[in-house]
Amino acid sequence: MSRFLNSKFNSLDPYDTSEELESMNGYVRLNTNESPFEPSVNVVKAARSAAGTLNFYPDPDCTKLREKLSALMNVKPSEIVFGNGSDEILNILFMAFCEHDAAFPDITYSFYKILAGFHGVDFVTVPLDENFKINPDDYKSLNGRTIFIANPNAPTGIFLSLDDVEKIINQNPDGLTVIDEAYIDFGGESAKKLIHEHKNLIVVRTFSKSRSMAGARLGWCMTNEEIAKDINNIKNTFTPYNINAMTQAAGLAAVEDEEITQKNVTMIKRVRDNTASRLREMGFEVLDSSANFLFVRHKSVSGEKIFEALKRCRIMIRHFTKPEKISEFNRITIGTAEQMQILLEVLKRVIKK
Amino acid sequence: MSRFLNSKFNSLDPYDTSEELESMNGYVRLNTNESPFEPSVNVVKAARSAAGTLNFYPDPDCTKLREKLSALMNVKPSEIVFGNGSDEILNILFMAFCEHDAAFPDITYSFYKILAGFHGVDFVTVPLDENFKINPDDYKSLNGRTIFIANPNAPTGIFLSLDDVEKIINQNPDGLTVIDEAYIDFGGESAKKLIHEHKNLIVVRTFSKSRSMAGARLGWCMTNEEIAKDINNIKNTFTPYNINAMTQAAGLAAVEDEEITQKNVTMIKRVRDNTASRLREMGFEVLDSSANFLFVRHKSVSGEKIFEALKRCRIMIRHFTKPEKISEFNRITIGTAEQMQILLEVLKRVIKK
Repeated sequence: MSRFLNSKFNSLDPYDTSEELESMNGYVRLNTNESPFEPSVNVVKAARSAAGTLNFYPDPDCTKLREKLSALMNVKPSEIVFGNGSDEILNILFMAFCEHDAAFPDITYSFYKILAGFHGVDFVTVPLDENFKINPDDYKSLNGRTIFIANPNAPTGIFLSLDDVEKIINQNPDGLTVIDEAYIDFGGESAKKLIHEHKNLIVVRTFSKSRSMAGARLGWCMTNEEIAKDINNIKNTFTPYNINAMTQAAGLAAVEDEEITQKNVTMIKRVRDNTASRLREMGFEVLDSSANFLFVRHKSVSGEKIFEALKRCRIMIRHFTKPEKISEFNRITIGTAEQMQILLEVLKRVIKK
Repeated sequence: MSRFLNSKFNSLDPYDTSEELESMNGYVRLNTNESPFEPSVNVVKAARSAAGTLNFYPDPDCTKLREKLSALMNVKPSEIVFGNGSDEILNILFMAFCEHDAAFPDITYSFYKILAGFHGVDFVTVPLDENFKINPDDYKSLNGRTIFIANPNAPTGIFLSLDDVEKIINQNPDGLTVIDEAYIDFGGESAKKLIHEHKNLIVVRTFSKSRSMAGARLGWCMTNEEIAKDINNIKNTFTPYNINAMTQAAGLAAVEDEEITQKNVTMIKRVRDNTASRLREMGFEVLDSSANFLFVRHKSVSGEKIFEALKRCRIMIRHFTKPEKISEFNRITIGTAEQMQILLEVLKRVIKK
């Protein structure tokens, strides 16, 4: 580090993107939970149209996108805040709402830990139970903290019932509960209907997964107006024009193409469930996934060996070395039926060896 | 504010975008220093092409854009960091490099003060001299602080010579100097050649002005490798995928279309200098501008009256009420020759009244 860097950043823990960078070089990318489906024709058209007037600043309020999305979601426009990816929303939440510390599962989206460290937020991690599930009782003693729950959780893919979500919220009357629903469209029920009943709930969403827009960077959250105003004020203080004009236009078109999103989701769920069955037949333990990925380990072949063998065949999946209790697992994004067919063929050979 | 907001944010001072929002409703927009020229055909094509594969995450390193831009700028790829607009670069600099306080002119880009407040950075403002110029001698006693200089300065448009820039850097061996060159393409000489001689210099740039890409959000900075690595580590900690795929593609095309940029810049400078002459003939004091805007006051008609009269005619310029020494000034973005003609016609009538 240079001598000018603030001493509070002397042990930075940046997000490691090296594998993602590598996978951009001609791999079948089953490692980042992207959608295998290109965005719709209307999304591409909308982006192109916006590109023609890029000389003008984007709308800092995303007014049109906000209106359409709020109508689709049945919330008020003032209950929504947009971010440059949901990562930006999460960044603001860790920066601004964790004065009294944070809590999240020991196995969950790795960015929570990175952001907590970055903002100097003290946090506790709560172990998943022996079935890799979140148990609401384990959050009982954490009242007052900001609790982050990815639902469905990553990398397990397991969905926590809305009753259990509500239990966590109710146990935490003095703190915020953040439900990160990046994968909710692939299974389970959204907590969005709870934002009017509970004044301490934020539901985070993204256009990166079911809406095929990871490359556009568009995330958002829903919460009550008071908290939304706080988040929006923070946003307007450090990044007033955070959503570029092309992404706003593409996002609007994607909202209007909800049918296409649902069609893609249905397809991905079907391929996921077929792939899970086939993997189980091959001796894999496959956690029950409500997401667009599967979390799997084989009864006899190590997770690392499977990961490396697939990599040699130009198929990139995600292997987690830490913590130890998941070190035999791999996370496999659901691609097209054809991609899954190739994956299964390769896996058959790997397991026979 | 909600009861959950961190108490350090209890007096937020968000950037006020209300006038910019209003100006999006059918005004001639001479208020935000946008380019009047649409991006090139190649930029639009590149954005469209990238929109077709938005389902994939963008390159977190902007590899292709980085290579092209570094070649154009004659710096190493590793000496560049990209931001979601130069605002994001500035945000990182205030967050990460101002442990020993900041300093900037009393009249300059308003965002510096907002960001300093946001990150709890103590700062001093250094008054411009009686001719609205930055005097390097006034920065002599500030060694050790991070000094932010917009060059050309906004809203004055006045360029500080490279000798004077170097004087400020040399007077500040224990601190960083940040030269914000958002408007450098419209006049003056860049400090970029100094980044190898001075290890405490960061030069900030944007695609928003001369490259007609305000709507795409693409800013960047050049500095020595060590500091660039710090900035990049910070970037990768809280926003690894900060530049969306369409903006990366559009930016790359814009770099390749450097001739078009230079043609547009030449046109804007010609229109600027003509407009300045005409305004002076009408009794305006016009500061010497090296930017794509003019900072002007009339000898007998108040700045506020001029601003309001133009607004009634659906022409939006920028009026600053604070500080008092510029409260008679207006900042007028250089639009097309036709837009300037309309502006001058309206101004003639306003002044006669």
